[in-house]
Amino acid sequence: MARNSLIVQKFGGTSVGSIERIQAVAERVIKAKEEGKQLVVVVSAMSGETNRLLGLAQQVDAVPAERELDVLLSAGEQVSMALLAMMLNRLGHKAISLTGWQAGIKTSCQHNDAKITDIDPSYIQQLLEQDQIVIVAGFQGINDERDITTLGRGGSDTTAVALAGALRADECQIFTDVDGVYTCDPRLVPQARRLDVVHFDDMTSMARNGAKVLQLQSVEYARQHRVPLRVLSSFEEGKGTLVSFDSSAAANVVGVALKNQQTLLDVDMPLPELQEQLNLFGMQCWCKAVAADSTQIVTANEDLARLKLVLGNKMHPIATVSTLSVIGEDVSDLADNICAVLAEAGIRVRQNKRSTHCLSLLINEDDHQLAVDIVHKRFVVEPESLDNRSLLAVS
Amino acid sequence: MARNSLIVQKFGGTSVGSIERIQAVAERVIKAKEEGKQLVVVVSAMSGETNRLLGLAQQVDAVPAERELDVLLSAGEQVSMALLAMMLNRLGHKAISLTGWQAGIKTSCQHNDAKITDIDPSYIQQLLEQDQIVIVAGFQGINDERDITTLGRGGSDTTAVALAGALRADECQIFTDVDGVYTCDPRLVPQARRLDVVHFDDMTSMARNGAKVLQLQSVEYARQHRVPLRVLSSFEEGKGTLVSFDSSAAANVVGVALKNQQTLLDVDMPLPELQEQLNLFGMQCWCKAVAADSTQIVTANEDLARLKLVLGNKMHPIATVSTLSVIGEDVSDLADNICAVLAEAGIRVRQNKRSTHCLSLLINEDDHQLAVDIVHKRFVVEPESLDNRSLLAVS
Repeated sequence: MARNSLIVQKFGGTSVGSIERIQAVAERVIKAKEEGKQLVVVVSAMSGETNRLLGLAQQVDAVPAERELDVLLSAGEQVSMALLAMMLNRLGHKAISLTGWQAGIKTSCQHNDAKITDIDPSYIQQLLEQDQIVIVAGFQGINDERDITTLGRGGSDTTAVALAGALRADECQIFTDVDGVYTCDPRLVPQARRLDVVHFDDMTSMARNGAKVLQLQSVEYARQHRVPLRVLSSFEEGKGTLVSFDSSAAANVVGVALKNQQTLLDVDMPLPELQEQLNLFGMQCWCKAVAADSTQIVTANEDLARLKLVLGNKMHPIATVSTLSVIGEDVSDLADNICAVLAEAGIRVRQNKRSTHCLSLLINEDDHQLAVDIVHKRFVVEPESLDNRSLLAVS
Repeated sequence: MARNSLIVQKFGGTSVGSIERIQAVAERVIKAKEEGKQLVVVVSAMSGETNRLLGLAQQVDAVPAERELDVLLSAGEQVSMALLAMMLNRLGHKAISLTGWQAGIKTSCQHNDAKITDIDPSYIQQLLEQDQIVIVAGFQGINDERDITTLGRGGSDTTAVALAGALRADECQIFTDVDGVYTCDPRLVPQARRLDVVHFDDMTSMARNGAKVLQLQSVEYARQHRVPLRVLSSFEEGKGTLVSFDSSAAANVVGVALKNQQTLLDVDMPLPELQEQLNLFGMQCWCKAVAADSTQIVTANEDLARLKLVLGNKMHPIATVSTLSVIGEDVSDLADNICAVLAEAGIRVRQNKRSTHCLSLLINEDDHQLAVDIVHKRFVVEPESLDNRSLLAVS
């Protein structure tokens, strides 16, 4: 007989932010359990807890010792996982919570930003065979020195995906505060539509270009380990969005992603030399040679101060810009068309970059709302009419 | 060359109850370090934290799953130990914090009340050789299943004493909110005097008979492993009280201890049968046969309800009583004398029990303040005059 299907579920800080919410999570978990599934549940710290602990640390030291910060922060997940396991016990189900090291999660040495290097799933498998629901602390592991480490931003998603890979889970479900992946951020474009399925290629492009629903790192990890991912709402019923390798999931234009708060700069330096300098400081920028000794680059505003240290008075800010990315199988072919539609609306496209499944356009930040409205409407909502229009434009 | 002396220091929840207090603890630790000592520091959870976590657990379940309660509560020490290590780092000293399992503390399986069964001190020793100050979470360990366990009441003292034993430390220092062991609880008898030294035999009797400054379990453990104990104030400078095996530490009358909130009962049952029943329920009482089928027993008020379940209407409460214990080498010889002095003051001694280093007297609880005042004054403060008086009484 085939084994029961094994699901890894991940609940973030808001989902376990109070005892009432922990009860709601427990009921969701139980529902899946009663459908006959084996369950591993990854939890973040209760919302607010990580900030509370960080606040204590910063009262001690503006830059706290990294090793000890990991010891401190990892206590947050220990609280939420124990409470969820207690709740499941109270509701009549066998459940056991495991810290990162108990769950066999090994990481690199880099404190505060460790990478998972290996997972020994044998103890979890043993507990699953005993019909236990296994709760695992997200965001944490242990390095070769047996020190506690944490994984950095989006760490709990990474834990869930990595566990799903190691356990060969049938699906990794990320529960969050939205009910799936949308064609565009619905706060930006209310007409944005939830996708039932999205291909890993497209999801990777969306995450890389500003979509916040899934962290890039966990999408890449899931893709690499071929773990189907599903994004679901913690608060509403629904099937969410499945991220898969199914080629039927690919679409001409899947969605639109946006990155704001970036600066376009002129730098008095030849492209190769600038690239070398940036690499030296571990910085990645969108660069374009504009003359033999002059390069244009785009950088996140939050990196400007750091860049200034490297480039001094060789850098000259030009404009605050946004990157608008259109994602889908054939978007490269649509580039001229999209630029024409934007030009028609008086929006200047300063640069564009084409890659497989993604076309990124650099526009002034002031234009971002209009641009995203237009592109989403014409190329996502009305692709049919667009196809006609595109033929007209070419003809 | 002899190794540097190795000290284990233990700070309770009040001592690490705020960032300011953690800084004060760090400064104390550094002072000892700068005197050339190797240091292992055991900490409790910040005061209030254990209750906060218990409160969360009880919102989930009135009787939370024991295993998960240990996972939850052990997060408390993880926070305080990390903050102390950070503070030491900030103040320029190498320090590393270790959870129970990282420190090699193995316990029995009994959740919420585990006993330390073994300590592997090799990792701590390795860190000490690297000149690290090692901070260890009190109150917690790990059992054979690799589950987190907690040690129950007074657990952090036990951790400190057990570590001191395993590391063959030169001294185990318990920092608390009083500056040492007193001849009597100073809240009860303001004239009580701090003892510079007290013998393990006497300290054991004091802890067993109501002195709260040290938990009986840790005194017994220290005695068994021949670890000198010192009780010190977290808040004031001073040498505190040394608990040692030095015979010069023994005194005729060392001090007076008191246990209130007890009940004297008649039970319609022969002593052997009653004893058997009590053993069956793991209860320990002071028993005395008063007739062939009748026994008097003394029990803590908090155990009355449980006792009622066992004995039903065979038990008849007589009075609310206190046990006043006089501790010291020759106290048995003083029994008649002490009873005479109390009788003179109109205080009825209902029963007395003599053992090595301890004489315990059962009195009405209403008399406890007067009794303790008289006994402390006559036999502790003025032992000289007492000796004369005693000769007169005998003659």
